[in-house]
Amino acid sequence: MEVGAFFSSLKNCFKSITRIGTDDPRRVLHSLKVATALTLLSIIYWGRAVYGITRLVMSVMTVVGVFEFSVGGTLCKSVNRICATLIGGALGVAEQHLATALVEIEETVLLLILVFILGAITTFFRFFPKIKAIYDSGVVIFMTTFLLVAFSKHGVEKIFERLLTILIGIITCTLISIFIWPVWAGEDLHILLASNIETLANCLIGFEVNYFDNQIRDKSVLQGYETVLKSEATEESLTNLARWEPAHGFFRPRHPWNQYKKIGAFIKKCASKIESLHDYLNPEIPISSEFKFKIKKPCSRIITELYKALKVISSSTEIMVHPSAAKRHIEKAKAAAEELNFFLETVSLEEAKFLSIIPVGTVAFILEEITQLVEKIYQSIAELSELAEFKNVGEVTVSPEKPHVS
Amino acid sequence: MEVGAFFSSLKNCFKSITRIGTDDPRRVLHSLKVATALTLLSIIYWGRAVYGITRLVMSVMTVVGVFEFSVGGTLCKSVNRICATLIGGALGVAEQHLATALVEIEETVLLLILVFILGAITTFFRFFPKIKAIYDSGVVIFMTTFLLVAFSKHGVEKIFERLLTILIGIITCTLISIFIWPVWAGEDLHILLASNIETLANCLIGFEVNYFDNQIRDKSVLQGYETVLKSEATEESLTNLARWEPAHGFFRPRHPWNQYKKIGAFIKKCASKIESLHDYLNPEIPISSEFKFKIKKPCSRIITELYKALKVISSSTEIMVHPSAAKRHIEKAKAAAEELNFFLETVSLEEAKFLSIIPVGTVAFILEEITQLVEKIYQSIAELSELAEFKNVGEVTVSPEKPHVS
Repeated sequence: MEVGAFFSSLKNCFKSITRIGTDDPRRVLHSLKVATALTLLSIIYWGRAVYGITRLVMSVMTVVGVFEFSVGGTLCKSVNRICATLIGGALGVAEQHLATALVEIEETVLLLILVFILGAITTFFRFFPKIKAIYDSGVVIFMTTFLLVAFSKHGVEKIFERLLTILIGIITCTLISIFIWPVWAGEDLHILLASNIETLANCLIGFEVNYFDNQIRDKSVLQGYETVLKSEATEESLTNLARWEPAHGFFRPRHPWNQYKKIGAFIKKCASKIESLHDYLNPEIPISSEFKFKIKKPCSRIITELYKALKVISSSTEIMVHPSAAKRHIEKAKAAAEELNFFLETVSLEEAKFLSIIPVGTVAFILEEITQLVEKIYQSIAELSELAEFKNVGEVTVSPEKPHVS
Repeated sequence: MEVGAFFSSLKNCFKSITRIGTDDPRRVLHSLKVATALTLLSIIYWGRAVYGITRLVMSVMTVVGVFEFSVGGTLCKSVNRICATLIGGALGVAEQHLATALVEIEETVLLLILVFILGAITTFFRFFPKIKAIYDSGVVIFMTTFLLVAFSKHGVEKIFERLLTILIGIITCTLISIFIWPVWAGEDLHILLASNIETLANCLIGFEVNYFDNQIRDKSVLQGYETVLKSEATEESLTNLARWEPAHGFFRPRHPWNQYKKIGAFIKKCASKIESLHDYLNPEIPISSEFKFKIKKPCSRIITELYKALKVISSSTEIMVHPSAAKRHIEKAKAAAEELNFFLETVSLEEAKFLSIIPVGTVAFILEEITQLVEKIYQSIAELSELAEFKNVGEVTVSPEKPHVS
C-alpha cells in the first residue's frame, strides 16, 4: 500500500511539473537560458587561478540574482545590482579615508557603528513596498561590498575587479535574455490585457446561455471573471518591468504603459459586475420566469452586442489596430439598453410577486451598468491606440455566431 | 524655485518614512534587531585571521537573507538555508567521489554538465508558486555551496566549517528574533482576522447611515471593505509562516491555522457583498424614496443586529473567548430578515415606478445574503474556538450605541 501511495504522489508531482512546463513552455526555455549562463561563466573562470573560486561564486550569485524571466526584470535587477555595488564600494572607500586618521581601536568602533547604522537603515527601507519589490536583493550586495571594502582594506583596484566580475555576469545574462528567445514583459502585458477582454466577452455570453436559455455551460468559461480579477498583481508588476525594456517589435520607445493601468481598472470593474451577475445564477434565488421571459429579448441583444464589441476590442488590441470597428456594436448595445430601460419604466407589475422580480430586475440593471463600462473600456483602448499610434486601417470583424453554438 | 521643489520632495520623503515607522513601530525595532545581529557577528569575526573576511561576509549574507520580520519567517528561512547548504554540500561531495575515477578533462566536462543540469532544474522549480515564496533565497545558497565544494575540492571539514558559520548566523538571528520584542505571525494573523470582522461591522453601519439617513460619513470607514478584500495575500502568507512558529502565549502547539483560511474566505465574501451594497450609494441611480422609507425599519434592524453580532465576534476573537454572545444578535437579524422578506412578498407596487424600485429591492436582497454570511462567519469562528479551546466563560457584550452617534 505504501509503495502505491509513494508512486501516486510521485505521479502527482510529475503531473504538476508538466503542467508548469506546458502552461508556458517559455519557462523551460528560461531554465535552459539560465543554465547556459551559469555554464558559460563556469567555463570563463575555469582554472584561472588569478580569479579563483570566489570570482566564480560571485558570478553565480549574480546570475541567480539577476536573471529574471522577462527582459525588463533582468535589466531592472542588473541596474540595481550595479548601483548597490557602486554605492557599497564608495562607502567602503570613504570609510577607509576616514580611518586613516584613527588608531586601530577607534577604527574598529567606527566600523561597528557604521555596520549598525547601515544595517538598520537598509532593513528599514525594505518596508517600503516599492523598494521591497525592486531593490531587495540589492541590500545583500550593498552590505557585503561595503564590508569587503571596509574590513579587508581593499583598494580601488580590488573594487573595480569585483565590479568587473559582476559586470561580466550581468552582460552575459542581459545578452542571453535579449537575444535568445526573449520574453518581453511589455508584450506579455499587452497580450494579458487583450485576453482579459476576451475572457469578459466569454463570461458574458456564458451568463446569457445559462440564465436565459437554462443551458449549463463549461464552468471554467463561466468563472473566467475570477482569473481577470486575480490578474491585478501580475498586471502591476508587468507594467513596472515593461518600463525597463528597450523598444522592440511594435513597442516604440515611450510606449504609454501608464494607459494600461487605466484600462486594467475598467476591466476589473467590469469583471466584478459580471461576478455580481453570476451570483444570480444561484438556483436558490427565487425568480419570476414570466418576468424573465419579458426582459429576455432586450437583455440578449445587449449581451450579444457587448460580446461582439469586446471580441473586436480584444482582437484589435492584440494586433495593434484601432478598435473603431467595435463602435457600432456598442451603439447597438446602448440602444438595446435604452429599450430595456423604457420597458422597465412602463411595465405593470400587478400580477407578479415582488420578491421574485427583484433578482431579475437587478440582472437587467447590472447589464446596463456593464454596457457603460464596456464603452469606457472601448474609449480607453481607443486612447491607447492614439497614444501608441496603432494602425488605423483595416477593420477587425468578428463572426456573428456565438462561440458556444459551434 | 528648484531649491523649493527639492525641499518639498525631501519633506515628502521624510513624511513617508515617518508613516512607515508610525504605522507599525515594530518595524523600527526590527531594523534595530537586524542591525544588532550584524554588529554582533562583526564583533565575533573581528580580527580572527583564521576565519577571515569571507566568514564575515557569509554571516552577513545569512543575516540579511534569514532575518525576517516575524519569528515564523525567520525560522522558515533558517531551516531552508540549512537544508540548501546540506544538499548543496552533499552533492558537491558526491561529485568529488565520482571525480576520483576520472582524468582532469573528464572531470571538467562532468562538472560543467552538472552545473548546467542543476542550474536548469533549480531555475525551473522557482516557477512553482509555493517554492518561489519559501525557497527562493535557498537556490543561491544551494548553487554556491555546491560550486565551492565541487570546484575548490573542499573536504568535509571545510563544509562543516561553512555550515558552522551559517549556523552561528542563524542562531544569532533566531535568538534575537524570539527573545527580543518578538513578532509572531500567528498573533498578527489572529489580530488581522478580528480587525477585518470589525471593519465589516463599521462598513455596514456606515452604509445604513449613508443610505437610510442620508448622512455622509467618513469615506475611509465606508470603504473599509477594500482593505478587507486586499488583505487576502497577507493572510495567506501569515498562515504559512504561523505554522513554523513554536507555541507561544495563547497559541498552543497544533493551533488550527487551517481554520483561519476558511474564516477568511467567508469574511471576503461578506466584504464583496458590502462592496455591492455601497455601489447603490451612487446618487446617479434612481431611487424610489417612498419605497426606501417602507423598508427602512426592517433593514435598519438587520444592520444594527449584524453590527452588534460582528462587534461581539470580533472582540471575543481578539481576547480568545467563545463568541456565543453573538448568537442572539444573529437570531434577531434573521428574524428581521424574515420580516423583510414577508413585506417584500406582500407589498403592492401599483403606484411606483419599477425602475426606481429595483435598486432599493436589491439592497434589501443583499442585506439578506449578508445575514447568511455573518451567520457563517459566526459558525466558523465558533468552530475555531472549539478547535483551539478558547475560554467559554464570560460574555462579551457590545454597547448598544452605534459608534457614529458618539
